[in-house]
Amino acid sequence: MTLAEKLAQIVGFWEKEDGEAVAPLQGEFEAERGYDEITRHGLGHLTRVYGTRPVDADAQARRLWGQQRRLVTGTRLGIPAIVHEECLTGLSAWKAATFPTPLAWGASFDPELVEEMAALIGGSMRDLGIHQGLSPVLDVVRDPRWGRVDECIGEDPYLVGTVGTSYVRGLQSAGVLATLKHFVGYSASRSGRNFAPVHAGPREVADVLLPPFEMAVLDGGVRSVMHSYAEIDGVPVASDPRLLTDKLRGEWGFDGTVVADYFGVAFLHLLHHVAGDLGEAAALALTAGVDIELPTGDAYLEPLAAAVAAGTVDEALVDRAVLRVLRQKEELGLLGATFEDEPPSGVDLDSPEHRRVAARLAEESLVLLSNDGTLPLARPRRVAVVGPNADRPHALFGCYSFLNHVLAQHPGAEVGLEVPTVREALVEELADTEVVAVRGCAVDDDDRSGFDEAVAAAASADVAVLVMGDHAGLFGRGTVGEGCDRDDLDLPGVQRGLVEAVLETGTPVVLVLLTGRPYVLDWALERCAAVVQAFFPGEEGGRAIAGVLSGRVNPSGRLPVSLPRSSGAQPYSYLHPALGGDGDVTNLSTVPVRPFGFGLSYTTFAHSDLVVDPAPRTDGTITARVRVTNTGERAGADVVQLYAHDVVGSVSRPVAQLVGYRRVALAAGESVEVELVVPTTRVAFTDREGRKIVEPGELELWVGASCADKEASARTTLTGDVHAVTTADPRWTSVTVR
Amino acid sequence: MTLAEKLAQIVGFWEKEDGEAVAPLQGEFEAERGYDEITRHGLGHLTRVYGTRPVDADAQARRLWGQQRRLVTGTRLGIPAIVHEECLTGLSAWKAATFPTPLAWGASFDPELVEEMAALIGGSMRDLGIHQGLSPVLDVVRDPRWGRVDECIGEDPYLVGTVGTSYVRGLQSAGVLATLKHFVGYSASRSGRNFAPVHAGPREVADVLLPPFEMAVLDGGVRSVMHSYAEIDGVPVASDPRLLTDKLRGEWGFDGTVVADYFGVAFLHLLHHVAGDLGEAAALALTAGVDIELPTGDAYLEPLAAAVAAGTVDEALVDRAVLRVLRQKEELGLLGATFEDEPPSGVDLDSPEHRRVAARLAEESLVLLSNDGTLPLARPRRVAVVGPNADRPHALFGCYSFLNHVLAQHPGAEVGLEVPTVREALVEELADTEVVAVRGCAVDDDDRSGFDEAVAAAASADVAVLVMGDHAGLFGRGTVGEGCDRDDLDLPGVQRGLVEAVLETGTPVVLVLLTGRPYVLDWALERCAAVVQAFFPGEEGGRAIAGVLSGRVNPSGRLPVSLPRSSGAQPYSYLHPALGGDGDVTNLSTVPVRPFGFGLSYTTFAHSDLVVDPAPRTDGTITARVRVTNTGERAGADVVQLYAHDVVGSVSRPVAQLVGYRRVALAAGESVEVELVVPTTRVAFTDREGRKIVEPGELELWVGASCADKEASARTTLTGDVHAVTTADPRWTSVTVR
Repeated sequence: MTLAEKLAQIVGFWEKEDGEAVAPLQGEFEAERGYDEITRHGLGHLTRVYGTRPVDADAQARRLWGQQRRLVTGTRLGIPAIVHEECLTGLSAWKAATFPTPLAWGASFDPELVEEMAALIGGSMRDLGIHQGLSPVLDVVRDPRWGRVDECIGEDPYLVGTVGTSYVRGLQSAGVLATLKHFVGYSASRSGRNFAPVHAGPREVADVLLPPFEMAVLDGGVRSVMHSYAEIDGVPVASDPRLLTDKLRGEWGFDGTVVADYFGVAFLHLLHHVAGDLGEAAALALTAGVDIELPTGDAYLEPLAAAVAAGTVDEALVDRAVLRVLRQKEELGLLGATFEDEPPSGVDLDSPEHRRVAARLAEESLVLLSNDGTLPLARPRRVAVVGPNADRPHALFGCYSFLNHVLAQHPGAEVGLEVPTVREALVEELADTEVVAVRGCAVDDDDRSGFDEAVAAAASADVAVLVMGDHAGLFGRGTVGEGCDRDDLDLPGVQRGLVEAVLETGTPVVLVLLTGRPYVLDWALERCAAVVQAFFPGEEGGRAIAGVLSGRVNPSGRLPVSLPRSSGAQPYSYLHPALGGDGDVTNLSTVPVRPFGFGLSYTTFAHSDLVVDPAPRTDGTITARVRVTNTGERAGADVVQLYAHDVVGSVSRPVAQLVGYRRVALAAGESVEVELVVPTTRVAFTDREGRKIVEPGELELWVGASCADKEASARTTLTGDVHAVTTADPRWTSVTVR
Repeated sequence: MTLAEKLAQIVGFWEKEDGEAVAPLQGEFEAERGYDEITRHGLGHLTRVYGTRPVDADAQARRLWGQQRRLVTGTRLGIPAIVHEECLTGLSAWKAATFPTPLAWGASFDPELVEEMAALIGGSMRDLGIHQGLSPVLDVVRDPRWGRVDECIGEDPYLVGTVGTSYVRGLQSAGVLATLKHFVGYSASRSGRNFAPVHAGPREVADVLLPPFEMAVLDGGVRSVMHSYAEIDGVPVASDPRLLTDKLRGEWGFDGTVVADYFGVAFLHLLHHVAGDLGEAAALALTAGVDIELPTGDAYLEPLAAAVAAGTVDEALVDRAVLRVLRQKEELGLLGATFEDEPPSGVDLDSPEHRRVAARLAEESLVLLSNDGTLPLARPRRVAVVGPNADRPHALFGCYSFLNHVLAQHPGAEVGLEVPTVREALVEELADTEVVAVRGCAVDDDDRSGFDEAVAAAASADVAVLVMGDHAGLFGRGTVGEGCDRDDLDLPGVQRGLVEAVLETGTPVVLVLLTGRPYVLDWALERCAAVVQAFFPGEEGGRAIAGVLSGRVNPSGRLPVSLPRSSGAQPYSYLHPALGGDGDVTNLSTVPVRPFGFGLSYTTFAHSDLVVDPAPRTDGTITARVRVTNTGERAGADVVQLYAHDVVGSVSRPVAQLVGYRRVALAAGESVEVELVVPTTRVAFTDREGRKIVEPGELELWVGASCADKEASARTTLTGDVHAVTTADPRWTSVTVR
């Protein structure tokens, strides 16, 4: 292979049309030449063929086959490209099924269902000739002010790791490569601002931010990883061989590809200023271990070629990356592919099976935060449905959905997807009820002119359902999403004012929140009859919400993030050591308004008889058995959550840490024993020498309705020597229910 | 020496009386035995003899001499104790001079004057038989929400280091040991909450938090260091030998004593939970390098004796600490002291010299934030003085002043110090003006009942002077101070409401802020005629403010901290890399309302002709010459501020960094050239291998009215090899004015 042919294999090509946005600052990088010219030596990746415009999949498939055919026939080596696409909440393609957002997956505490969802997504991608999906996002939530929280699974590394690894398994079961985003640190940006520097120490990185990635590599066998835009303690990850090579490949044995976050290589020069030009940026990234530059080859084509020619970059580093890409193309069967067959057509991207999984995941993800008995609704005569998110399909979707990510940039384009809004679903659900709908206000402006009409509608209704929350968007065009950060965690705009105005009528208010982050809700929890938190629940989300309101669905979601006390109390994580909680040394409280793991049901559950084996070895497993009983009068699902606290550690340890969980469906009155076998590596941490270890000593364990509820607790003592954890160890909890 | 005699030398004794508070959680540690019993084997330190109750110094001196005499005559070794006391804004003793707070020292940009102040403080201490002062605080401000910001000098490490080292020199020039607080990391606590965990990486610790300590050790020759309560990335500093021994002694050559922050050793067990009991806490702290436990020997007496007896702690570690204490006692002349002489009496703790320095420092520290020409006041007929801080002596003092730290716990005790309030000083200053005073509201409650009277007074006046801000207190009893954190950076209580109500009258409003932290002031800067920021300016602060209002004093203070944009935009520091500032990647702005270094004058200054030598070596010095001209019509002082930016670094570098400064007094029309000779070590940073280096490459330098103002700029290129910085390097800027 010539150098030009090699370099062609480690870059992507993105044929942008006017008005399409895929990344910040993309205007800096306008491709000025056409496809044939740019790919004359071949091509590594084809960037986002389906996902950036509302064009029929059949037409795009024909176009794609033509582009691949051109690579096969029009270049010396004849190697097709890996086609990659976004797919976080479903394949990013017009009319494709759109599932709930990752926070909703976290709230479901149901990794098996997430795996089913990802397998469906992967199937659609495979059918359309897409080889790689740029999901899942394994960033652990560290600050709810950050706009990309809506792409994350939760604030606990084990929850993120298990659910995220399930996604990887599902997607890859269809033969599509999953891509872990964003390796690593992005979510810990200072003051929750997108791209801001990360002030984290190596122990926080190793013990909080890295574990989900480790699980997805070791347990999930993920085939690709995307570097993060972050700079951690001054070092941009895209330039850090310790993370991209030593940790990922050396310690974890990863042998897939590392792809650049879009323009991330160039950003080493343009934003981080650790490279004087694009050539230096290329050299830094390639040396660190970024194998493929995306979306295009701004730094990896001409500037890198010049650097190799000048001798400042060793061509062996280019070879290393090329070989990784080619191995992956071989695994994908691309090296022999001719693309002489007909392109696919008529692929059903939103089949009944998609709908079934979307509905179940939405239902399992809804978190009932409070309820004075108003829910489920008792056959109301008249319901007022109020609020900016009540009758807006987009309100059910996250930032990386096709609707909010792409269609929002094509005003007038048809949605093309059946998306019953909450209002529509309620009309369908409550057949004998009169449903009156009033918007009342927008998501995020100052206009109160609609308040009076909303108040009047509520005043004459038996119950008012207020559907409020976020609008997910890109780069400042939403209240949450990429580049849509907040320095205020009150509901955006005048929404709180509208809720309070309706509360004044005395009509019971059921507040339904469609959001991409947790907001400050203490006032609402005190005054509303019931509050339902939905994290963008997807195309079947409207029906799921209606089902919870009517009682057809018994809510079973649990908070994957703490509900914040105040904007000014950030950042906060439930994983804090004793000194991050309340105490005599400060006047301020950070205690969340609702803790991690919290969620009500229309039935009740009791947890009892927690028994933990008396003295597990540090290099063994902890077996915990707990009895869970449905003590209410209807069937429901509980999420059994096992938390641990290392009583004395050689470094400070969190006051609570999720070490195992299990969603359990129970008939009224039913009781089961759940056994969780937890590898001791769950409580491993990084010691003062930088080794990951399990220490002997006392552990407190408990089960309850949230991390803050020690309904059933027990102690055990780990015995034996300090156990140095190796990379074979991040096993899942094994669970038995009987 | 017996083990008991050794242990006695490494602990303090604090004879607490009812109602005295010196530290959080002190109730856990009640001394149950009397002085004679506890000191039967000797004593290392006597804790706070003068500073915890309103008792006449003569009486306390007699008591102290008796206690020392008892150690000389009643113990086998006959060694007196080191007496230590708080002294941050003046000796903590009844009726002693109280100077401006450290933020005011920072605002003065006048280290020489701070040195004069500290020498006076040290003189008073020496005269009263006190050997060690628990000051200065060298924590670099990282988050204005933290209550202890009022004890800090500023947000720039070089400013903190230079001003703090001056304090050390001044205090130690009187023969009194200075103590650096709090080594290290305390100010970077998560979300600004006192004691919360610190999420900082090693580079941030090395390049931002440690430099002031390094300067005070190497340039200031400080004799004592206090560990911080902080845990950094999970490791409590009190248990970290890498900081307390390797860095401090090994790298920097420090050979004084490391003292515990009060109860900090026990906190390893009680708060950090890295020790299972007090004996383990003692072993950790002693091994790490904490030589002396303060305020009492909770962990270092019985628990440590038991640990040595059990063989779990090597007695050689005890010996190491004892020898350090004894060497210091020898240096202090204590080993031969008999205390047979008469105790001191009639020491003037608040002499005219104290007053002169207190006045000058207060005057230099006042920062004029905005002025539409209303200031200086043009002989007003009638002035309304409004606000909770207008006529309250305590409002002029910080949390560690005797008034707010001690007298606040003794209700009814006489202040004992002449402290003209702003109102009193204005009456004195504006002889021909009628001054009408109305409080209007309290510092921090919801009561608006006084608004009407304040509005009426303002409406009938030519100008309204609104004196608002903080009340400094301890553990939740103030709006700023130790344990008085905020999650909201609006002015406390209803103060903003009062200012806005007065603004409605149309009478020009001069807003004077007496605060211990910067607040969100955008609204006030837009609407008030003038805003004067005073950081608790001390006993002469009222007169200094009156002088600025009348025009007798031309304001010359500069902001040592950025004025925050919003509560939710924290943490923020002007030292951010490009990605911590505004840009296309986030919708949020963090740009401060007024930048670091900003401050107006009644005259104007121009900066021109910045010349930097063309290519300094990386191991040399940078010489910058700039012309400063008083372009206005009255005399005034400018603070010439030289900033640098490393254009491309191997790790990300701040967009601006103060590398030199000089306060310059200029007559109207006068022009001088200021030459700043800056060691290249000013722009050193920690590389990816953990070494501190100066890199070759381009530097941008500028001089202007603040860090954000490039009025005169120049570029230079550092040449030569990468320069590994050794500990001899943290030299001050050398400045010539001609």
